[in-house]
Amino acid sequence: MSAHPLEEILHPQSIAVVGASGSGGRGSGFLSPLLELGFKGKIYPVNPKYSEIEGMKAYPSLREIPDSVDYVISAVPAPEVLKMLKDCSQKGVKGVHLFTARFSETGRPEAADLEQEILKQARKRGIRLIGPNCMGVYYPRQGMSFRDGLPKESGSAGLASQSGNVAGEIIQTATSRGVYFSKAISYGNAIDLNESDYLDYFAQDPETKIILMYVEGVKDGQRFFNTLRRAASTKPVIIIKGGRGKSGARATASHTASLAGSVKIWETAVTQAGAVSVENLDELIDMAVSFYFLPPIRGRRVGVAGGAGGASVLAADQCEEAGLDVIPLPAEFREELKSKGVTIWDWLGNPADMSIREDENFSVGAVLEMMARNQNFDLLIAIIHGPHHRWHKEMSVETYLEEYRLKESSQKPLLVMVPDTSPGIDENDDWSWRLMRQVRMQLIADNIPFYPTIERAARAARKLIDYYQKRR
Amino acid sequence: MSAHPLEEILHPQSIAVVGASGSGGRGSGFLSPLLELGFKGKIYPVNPKYSEIEGMKAYPSLREIPDSVDYVISAVPAPEVLKMLKDCSQKGVKGVHLFTARFSETGRPEAADLEQEILKQARKRGIRLIGPNCMGVYYPRQGMSFRDGLPKESGSAGLASQSGNVAGEIIQTATSRGVYFSKAISYGNAIDLNESDYLDYFAQDPETKIILMYVEGVKDGQRFFNTLRRAASTKPVIIIKGGRGKSGARATASHTASLAGSVKIWETAVTQAGAVSVENLDELIDMAVSFYFLPPIRGRRVGVAGGAGGASVLAADQCEEAGLDVIPLPAEFREELKSKGVTIWDWLGNPADMSIREDENFSVGAVLEMMARNQNFDLLIAIIHGPHHRWHKEMSVETYLEEYRLKESSQKPLLVMVPDTSPGIDENDDWSWRLMRQVRMQLIADNIPFYPTIERAARAARKLIDYYQKRR
Repeated sequence: MSAHPLEEILHPQSIAVVGASGSGGRGSGFLSPLLELGFKGKIYPVNPKYSEIEGMKAYPSLREIPDSVDYVISAVPAPEVLKMLKDCSQKGVKGVHLFTARFSETGRPEAADLEQEILKQARKRGIRLIGPNCMGVYYPRQGMSFRDGLPKESGSAGLASQSGNVAGEIIQTATSRGVYFSKAISYGNAIDLNESDYLDYFAQDPETKIILMYVEGVKDGQRFFNTLRRAASTKPVIIIKGGRGKSGARATASHTASLAGSVKIWETAVTQAGAVSVENLDELIDMAVSFYFLPPIRGRRVGVAGGAGGASVLAADQCEEAGLDVIPLPAEFREELKSKGVTIWDWLGNPADMSIREDENFSVGAVLEMMARNQNFDLLIAIIHGPHHRWHKEMSVETYLEEYRLKESSQKPLLVMVPDTSPGIDENDDWSWRLMRQVRMQLIADNIPFYPTIERAARAARKLIDYYQKRR
Repeated sequence: MSAHPLEEILHPQSIAVVGASGSGGRGSGFLSPLLELGFKGKIYPVNPKYSEIEGMKAYPSLREIPDSVDYVISAVPAPEVLKMLKDCSQKGVKGVHLFTARFSETGRPEAADLEQEILKQARKRGIRLIGPNCMGVYYPRQGMSFRDGLPKESGSAGLASQSGNVAGEIIQTATSRGVYFSKAISYGNAIDLNESDYLDYFAQDPETKIILMYVEGVKDGQRFFNTLRRAASTKPVIIIKGGRGKSGARATASHTASLAGSVKIWETAVTQAGAVSVENLDELIDMAVSFYFLPPIRGRRVGVAGGAGGASVLAADQCEEAGLDVIPLPAEFREELKSKGVTIWDWLGNPADMSIREDENFSVGAVLEMMARNQNFDLLIAIIHGPHHRWHKEMSVETYLEEYRLKESSQKPLLVMVPDTSPGIDENDDWSWRLMRQVRMQLIADNIPFYPTIERAARAARKLIDYYQKRR
């Protein structure tokens, strides 16, 4: 089996950034992300206006670079791309990432013609194109990145996104939930390598265990859904579609010149191909987190513990509305409580309301562990209450988490709700935010997925269950 | 018109906390919240075990208090309540808040009988009851509170919640979005004063402009829906129902001994009464924020600006899916852009994609202001991008917000999306969280509502529009 064409492109020995500029303004620098992530090969800034950029010698053109160049990031204006491609050809360039925009997405015929001519010239010269009008490649293991501040850590999620902004947002949000990336590619107008190529690449990539996609339009529907079916048979594929309505379709045309198509046909086809279709980025991240951390869940019977009072009631409603089965406490469970001397043995239910637990010397962790051992539950959802400044202000994260004993219960599929402590206006926000941050870091270290609301945890669990049921 | 019975109860000159304890453990202290909020009247701790609590003289029983007592907070165990009521009678107590629990919600017949006897004795003695099994009253203007750390500031939202935990969560979350409370009452099992009484009270309360409710069950459906119709004709009423499914109904029984009833009948009746029904606490807060800050919105035509690339595409989809009309840019708008020399006059759309604005010296604020002046838009949604550590790290909130010029556009109904910067694991989370916090505080100061996602902003706007259309 010959290697996928992207494999060579993604492993360059040298990268030239043509049209590179200093670290001044917005979007100016593709150099600093490479430096930040420690790209091991050679980096050549190219710009006739500078002799040095970011402390590196700058070259007036590609041709002046003494060695061969494998990969080019193009930040030159659109009219200069054809000339640059000639230079690429001379330097033996295999792949060009065209950050350069203002092509077919402008809606102007001459810009669309130029785009086609660029494709023609690239094909003639054996150069593969990523883009145009995109942010390109984030590949932390190789030290490749398109934005400052993206994590150095690698993981096993692969992302192909038609939008660079969406790619950045997905990477940063997923990371804050413990999901790291093998590589992420923002691919814009996709005139050469397109969504099917990227999907195909991730499907065969051993570094990638789950695939995430943001797609505005597909070039060849039949090829795409065939590729999707193959990919989804090997690993989970989670897709969000941009341009679902008529205003969104107008927006995709001016964003990446994509034809959006019917959303109903799209969703049916995606689901039939065995992929997971999601509606918004929150759901995409929730599903990524779920596939990343959870084993297959075999049934819908959920045990819920940790909420108090109305929070337990709403948790029950939301689990049920998501299609989970919030079963009554099994008889033997109640007997076990009784035999342990728990005086609320006849009152406790599922969800296990913890509002009067302190009278009983009876912790959330004890309930969760009993649920984990009980064969009537297929999965567990634990609710972490928000921090209370009177009780928790001086508490370490270890003490705070002690009563939950989450690691012990995670032998069974366990989802944890950790409330979002949004930037508020209270003077105590600061330490509570810090404590919740430590809670999250601890959960990630323990490989336990967390979600900001019960609703989102329950919906993610339900989608996961459906996914595994379908595959059986 | 005679005053509502709650009016006197909520304005006590003296409060006794019976069963008061020190500031040690959880839920121990009803004293410290009163001290924290600066209750102006007299406070009497009552507990035979102590001679002093929180620096105040403690009394062995109510009878030993030298003066009369208006209001009692009962934290004694259930079996001691009847005796305490006798003492209340002797001291001229008008209202008793029974924090005391373990009554009908236990499912035990003898506990339910005791609850009925308490009601009977209270009625005989002319004492009104809040609860039992609840957190009671938060009334910042009077210095009354049931939990440490609730804000001292007053506002115009009134809350009646069957759950104390839900009440606390609503107050804290709403506050972080700029919504403050006239008063909030957690009312638990509601054996005497019930949901209809509280609703009726808030309807006639001049300090309350919008009413929020968390309800698990109603005692008298006909009275409740009549009261709701009257209340909703005077001010917005937003209601969330706990116990919508069968597991939730089991949970309401053991939480507040409530019979949950059919959720479909409930929702139809709530909507027919002119109130706003919501599904989760996020939606409740979003609607509270919307009614609190926004004027009536007269139509669905929305102008969206501030997103970039895929974020704009998804914003269009989500607005449309929420039922807003993301109209194409009006012709005269395009002409105005052209006449101003904006080179992307033919490319810019609605949503206005700001990804290439810097080439054009053309800000989000400029687009928003044009939309605010253009009569084709009924409302605006502005997207605040998250902070980027390279560009914004040293920026003041004023500089950060400069390009949006939100205050200038808020002459038209304006909703702002401010991303949640959740506690992440990145070293830059700290300052970005701080910056976003300042952004939120600035928006609150300018009376501009904000939402963590476009989806939530769009759904809230749509519900608001439906509300005002129905009332016309």
